[in-house]
Amino acid sequence: MSGIPGYDFGDESVPAAPISMAEFERLKDTVMWSDEDDEYLRMAGETLEPQVDDMLDRWLGFLANFEFMNDYRRDVDTGELIEEYGDRSRPRYGQWIRDTCDTPYDEDWLDYQFEIGRRHHRTKKNETDDVNAAPHIDLRHITPLIYLHTATVREFLQNGDHTEAEIDKMYQAWFKSIVLQVTLWSYPYTKDGDW
Amino acid sequence: MSGIPGYDFGDESVPAAPISMAEFERLKDTVMWSDEDDEYLRMAGETLEPQVDDMLDRWLGFLANFEFMNDYRRDVDTGELIEEYGDRSRPRYGQWIRDTCDTPYDEDWLDYQFEIGRRHHRTKKNETDDVNAAPHIDLRHITPLIYLHTATVREFLQNGDHTEAEIDKMYQAWFKSIVLQVTLWSYPYTKDGDW
Repeated sequence: MSGIPGYDFGDESVPAAPISMAEFERLKDTVMWSDEDDEYLRMAGETLEPQVDDMLDRWLGFLANFEFMNDYRRDVDTGELIEEYGDRSRPRYGQWIRDTCDTPYDEDWLDYQFEIGRRHHRTKKNETDDVNAAPHIDLRHITPLIYLHTATVREFLQNGDHTEAEIDKMYQAWFKSIVLQVTLWSYPYTKDGDW
Repeated sequence: MSGIPGYDFGDESVPAAPISMAEFERLKDTVMWSDEDDEYLRMAGETLEPQVDDMLDRWLGFLANFEFMNDYRRDVDTGELIEEYGDRSRPRYGQWIRDTCDTPYDEDWLDYQFEIGRRHHRTKKNETDDVNAAPHIDLRHITPLIYLHTATVREFLQNGDHTEAEIDKMYQAWFKSIVLQVTLWSYPYTKDGDW
């Protein structure tokens, strides 16, 4: 219904998360989550909404510096960057910013985090966009992006009408969420019983 | 030689890292590492040295709030917290702060990160301290601690004779290092070819 290609958040086709909401609450505890973080992420969502395209330009521009990152988006037969892949996945990347700020997180949100993990892992990479790119993104090239996706957000949070204290609270809540999400995305990469 | 129980950094008993220094440099690139980060981590090391015990109290105090975290340190037969385990591992935890600040990172440092991963994973948990605790720490209870180990450091970095700009640069370098290290620690948890 969103009009975003392959964006299946809340759709019944998305498998249920392999952990309960109670275990999810424990993970939130380990990133020091509080109700205040829910509140400040909603505030962040309002501040970031008009800047979504600028954020994507910043992040995609950074990733494009690296040939080994570009390789994940090339056709494995022709070696060409797949333009349609970028065109289809970019709006999902933008929606991910909105979903990160759309608190409190419910079961649909949790289920979809595991779907995002599968779409980076060989379980399901390329399937959503029906492309012939590399079949898998290595976990060691995903976890480090916690830094990119957190540190660069601070400058965008500053482009609003908020106090320094509010900006810091939005940043902390965002940071917690990114760490939490990368934790969930690692599920399909992990050996049985190790996650 | 350090006198720290089970601290084998630089020892020939530590297996070589499964990645080359060239691949390690790529991972540093993905956390936006620069030579300046090496410099500011050394500055952080001087600032944090007199506060190592306070940092450990803060972190261990946080973790002790959670029964599922305490379970990793209990004797699986008696259910009691293993005092000797804490006594032996605490100085290694403190040394980890120093090693995080001891830049630039060399091959011994890289090798030892994978050893730290094995010691949390079922490959080698308990072996170093010869204890009868839970045989494995789940990855989903490790990655979230990026937040704890980063956000709380800022307050300790402020307890020195540095400008706000220097404090921020020390914090950013520390943040990058923590993300990089957790990336490396995830290696033994990951399915063959997925890391």
